[in-house]
Amino acid sequence: MCELLGMNSNLPTDICFSFKGFQVRGGGTAVHADGWGIAFFEGCGVRTFHDPKPSCQSPIAKLVSSYPIHSTNVIAHIRKATKGGSRLENTHPFQRELWGRHWVFAHNGTLATFAPALNGRFRPVGTTDSELAFCWIMQELYAEFGECAPDVNIVFDRLRQFAIELAQHGQINFILSNGDCLYAHCSTKLNYLVRQAPFAEAHLIDEDVTMDFSTVMSSGERAVVIATTPLTDEDWIPMRAGSLWCFEDGKVIANAATIASKDNPLTGNCG
Amino acid sequence: MCELLGMNSNLPTDICFSFKGFQVRGGGTAVHADGWGIAFFEGCGVRTFHDPKPSCQSPIAKLVSSYPIHSTNVIAHIRKATKGGSRLENTHPFQRELWGRHWVFAHNGTLATFAPALNGRFRPVGTTDSELAFCWIMQELYAEFGECAPDVNIVFDRLRQFAIELAQHGQINFILSNGDCLYAHCSTKLNYLVRQAPFAEAHLIDEDVTMDFSTVMSSGERAVVIATTPLTDEDWIPMRAGSLWCFEDGKVIANAATIASKDNPLTGNCG
Repeated sequence: MCELLGMNSNLPTDICFSFKGFQVRGGGTAVHADGWGIAFFEGCGVRTFHDPKPSCQSPIAKLVSSYPIHSTNVIAHIRKATKGGSRLENTHPFQRELWGRHWVFAHNGTLATFAPALNGRFRPVGTTDSELAFCWIMQELYAEFGECAPDVNIVFDRLRQFAIELAQHGQINFILSNGDCLYAHCSTKLNYLVRQAPFAEAHLIDEDVTMDFSTVMSSGERAVVIATTPLTDEDWIPMRAGSLWCFEDGKVIANAATIASKDNPLTGNCG
Repeated sequence: MCELLGMNSNLPTDICFSFKGFQVRGGGTAVHADGWGIAFFEGCGVRTFHDPKPSCQSPIAKLVSSYPIHSTNVIAHIRKATKGGSRLENTHPFQRELWGRHWVFAHNGTLATFAPALNGRFRPVGTTDSELAFCWIMQELYAEFGECAPDVNIVFDRLRQFAIELAQHGQINFILSNGDCLYAHCSTKLNYLVRQAPFAEAHLIDEDVTMDFSTVMSSGERAVVIATTPLTDEDWIPMRAGSLWCFEDGKVIANAATIASKDNPLTGNCG
């Protein structure tokens, strides 16, 4: 399995503090030693860093944890390989262009039986189930909407349908972004918190590092941080198993169930 | 204008020495201060580093010049903006997936009048003429060959046709790779050299750094380095204006004219 880290904020914010705790889990305080990657959106642009080596030993991860890159949407991943060898092409996050925007995807879980028919519009380069699922999601969105990018609530609704379908094949915890907002699906395990005024201190769980956010965030700043396992001693909110979320400007703008329950037969519109 | 740097080798080789001389031209010894980027292919995988800031001041460029990443195909670019602002989405090299492979492109020159009809299969994210030309090249390859990737000599032939067409709109010095080989087009200015046994010393032009390649390269190793302006005191070979080249395993496997002359009416097959 793997671990995911995401951030969505209303103002460009750096993720150095959270990433410092996250990266040591890549072969240090946890076993996710089969590579790591991170993507930072800055407007329409995105820059990525990938390394098939453990993040706890990576000079690139060290740079990312100390060099503040200000972004409104971040997706990071540390990998414990299940399907697909420990190679650069299998290192998350994956990236494709659709509707003139970069889309970035990272996944935690194994989709043991997922074998969709791909039409070639988006093809995996590596051999992971994760990149295959991402290509299929992109293909299905393009197949339905062609050249006209739909609104965020329509994308959210389709992602919910895709998550339900993918969950039949295994665990599909994922984070996806096109730079405007950040979608997160909790299949089995994902947590989030919102950092906003009044800001407080936080202490990393994996490193002896404390940050007083009142000294680094401005009063109007708001950031959501998402992680497979809480990174700090703050009040993290566990997402329920089988739920899709959309974050924009550092707040929840939609969430909906992807596992049917008595209260939720999965037939409604997006939340 | 901008400067290009490329490398193609038969064995994974690092480009730290050449990049050290190249990156100081990004706002240091030359004026290309509007961002920089580099892509390293490792097998099918590719990792990129981008920064919209000058490379001579960039901590990421400093890391790339000192951390050996072993690759067989490298494309780097330092930018002096002509079309498209100094933003991350306009920072070369650009990347798209076609036929289940990553393709990476960087361009030097201005295509003042190029305005092709795009069908949406590949759309620019930024506003440069360079990304537009790249999307058009990818679109035309896909339009002709659909899901079946053609052989390298056929891609070479089509790239020659595209270069001829693009050259009607301005300067189109470019480097393109899918990780198997490296294509380079000299519209106005591009040089290359081959490093192979017997290896000698080289001295950077922009920095007081000397490298004895006999101490770092093995006897069977061979690397082509391509640069807009020679980076060292070695014997660089100027590519003739209007020529397309293909490099594989550290040697030239094809070259052909893209400007008509008495000797070359541009009607033959690829070289």
